[in-house]
Amino acid sequence: GGFFYFLGGPRPTKEPVRTVLRPSKKFFLGRSDCFSNPFFLCSRHFFFSCFPHKYVYFRLCALSLKIFRFRVYLFTFVCERKMSTLRVSLCQMAVEKSKESNLSKAVGMIAAAAKRGSNLAVLPECFMCPYGTKYFDEYAEEIRPGCPTYDSISKVAKESNIWVVAGSMPERSGGKLYNSSMVFDSAGNLRHVHRKVHLFQIHSETVQMDEGEVLTAGNTAIPVSMNDKIKFGVGICFDVRYPPLAWKYAQEGTSFLVYPGAFNMFTGPIHWELSARARAMDNQQYVLLCSPARDPNAEYVAWGHSMVTDPLGRVIATAEEGEAYVDAELDFDLIKDARKRIPIIDGTRNDIYSLRWQ
Amino acid sequence: GGFFYFLGGPRPTKEPVRTVLRPSKKFFLGRSDCFSNPFFLCSRHFFFSCFPHKYVYFRLCALSLKIFRFRVYLFTFVCERKMSTLRVSLCQMAVEKSKESNLSKAVGMIAAAAKRGSNLAVLPECFMCPYGTKYFDEYAEEIRPGCPTYDSISKVAKESNIWVVAGSMPERSGGKLYNSSMVFDSAGNLRHVHRKVHLFQIHSETVQMDEGEVLTAGNTAIPVSMNDKIKFGVGICFDVRYPPLAWKYAQEGTSFLVYPGAFNMFTGPIHWELSARARAMDNQQYVLLCSPARDPNAEYVAWGHSMVTDPLGRVIATAEEGEAYVDAELDFDLIKDARKRIPIIDGTRNDIYSLRWQ
Repeated sequence: GGFFYFLGGPRPTKEPVRTVLRPSKKFFLGRSDCFSNPFFLCSRHFFFSCFPHKYVYFRLCALSLKIFRFRVYLFTFVCERKMSTLRVSLCQMAVEKSKESNLSKAVGMIAAAAKRGSNLAVLPECFMCPYGTKYFDEYAEEIRPGCPTYDSISKVAKESNIWVVAGSMPERSGGKLYNSSMVFDSAGNLRHVHRKVHLFQIHSETVQMDEGEVLTAGNTAIPVSMNDKIKFGVGICFDVRYPPLAWKYAQEGTSFLVYPGAFNMFTGPIHWELSARARAMDNQQYVLLCSPARDPNAEYVAWGHSMVTDPLGRVIATAEEGEAYVDAELDFDLIKDARKRIPIIDGTRNDIYSLRWQ
Repeated sequence: GGFFYFLGGPRPTKEPVRTVLRPSKKFFLGRSDCFSNPFFLCSRHFFFSCFPHKYVYFRLCALSLKIFRFRVYLFTFVCERKMSTLRVSLCQMAVEKSKESNLSKAVGMIAAAAKRGSNLAVLPECFMCPYGTKYFDEYAEEIRPGCPTYDSISKVAKESNIWVVAGSMPERSGGKLYNSSMVFDSAGNLRHVHRKVHLFQIHSETVQMDEGEVLTAGNTAIPVSMNDKIKFGVGICFDVRYPPLAWKYAQEGTSFLVYPGAFNMFTGPIHWELSARARAMDNQQYVLLCSPARDPNAEYVAWGHSMVTDPLGRVIATAEEGEAYVDAELDFDLIKDARKRIPIIDGTRNDIYSLRWQ
């Protein structure tokens, strides 16, 4: 037995919650993953570089473990808020006609987000395909290894050690087309596919569109579990307009909702921010909307203004219309705080009404 | 037989859609009610005074009728939008400690709204009682003829020929207290009572409140039919935060939602307008929020800012915090227009999810 001294792991440029432990006097090598391990082992150096958030505090903790035949006494810093924050980057990328260029740009923006310390990157709706019913069939791919879009995003997620909500793409499956979002974890594994449940229609003077002409709608809304503490829900664009979908996710314990979307110059100014704020306020959780950058020459001109709203429905980060990142730190303790102050969720009258899904 | 010339009816100060027809050459006296009669008979004078809305248009229509033994040829103006507008006044009244003063003020504001041509007056939450759990028992009344609040509002509704959503009052019934809203029609008949379904709680640094300490919650949300065309839903304050309640009303065909409410200085700035706009956008209908005027010396300081939002979620009329009327004309054709442009309601996935109420 004896005391160990732990060097800091590599500087956490990619996934700040994981490091390699190197003891100085005994043979011991291990990994500590903040998301799965209740005690986060780290050096002072690592700790400070990892959690610069102004609210982060910590305490010194003594811990005795029996590992194989060694009795190990560890002095560790326990991060009090270790489960409660997540860094996200919305990649408001300019989508072009070339699929290869789009994939290359998406990969670059995801890698750059990881370099800045983000845990999750979000791409916009139709990130590899111009938005428009006439393009979907030509650009569509299956969602499986060996397909270019799947392979590109899986690879960068793994290499950059970052979760990715891959906006959306036209998905070909069983002779049908869907507007689908792939979710990859930081090991590059496909963890979820959300197929747009509410197909978009618009009939204004300047914009005409009916996705139902070529797409089939999805029928499910299932949260993604990042770990045993953090769940999130994915919707695509028009899905954000439907309280039942957000309600279903919230009932299943999500902490944030991610909507890749492409509102236009008619719906953008009147409803983009309002939708984000409304879903956040109603469900008392974070909402992330990621749009393509605006291309005034495109057939369908996206509004831009990707944004993150907090559990009180306030905009905490946003962009203008050009190509941009929207970075934000989600502090999940603020969900508890909002729900304590204004008990909307606790006040839901589950005794008199309920949502039935299929 | 021959042509009739119709004088205009009385100037429509109370209910602009009703007038008396006076033919100039033959003996004929009748009433035409715009809400029930498919052809609205009116003179040019009446027509213009009745529908000043900028979108109103009309056409000349020839009609042949056999009335008793006369064959009557009428040239009438048919108002294309005759079913589609309603004038509303939100009465943002300053509530005092004296119930008598409050009732008197409410009656005066309703009568004044009718004089300006409104078809519906709305009072704020707790219009006859200071807002606060400690006051409810003392001020509570039953909802029946013979009780002061019932009698006062019924009488002015009838005398002024105006519908009234009587904000809310502490209601005593079966040994319990409710936060309830009475709805009277323009003949002074009680048409509906809504008991607040979601009791309010707040635990912020500056405001503490828990209605559940003294109140019992209602369990129903049933629309009120003004006639065979126009329905509306009533919620009270915290009810506005719950999409399922608005969703239920919308499914049953409402055109507008009325929420007497008293947000405070914490929730008012962040959520009052956002709630009104969100419920209007989601359900593509008008939303009316009526607050008491702000009294900085009250135990519970109301936010004020009564407002009306349109079916696209835009604020079309609002007040500051002082005593005020918010007058607006609801044009129900704009609901059809909004739903045609952005088919949110048509896109609801009733095939996969549904709301069950009890």
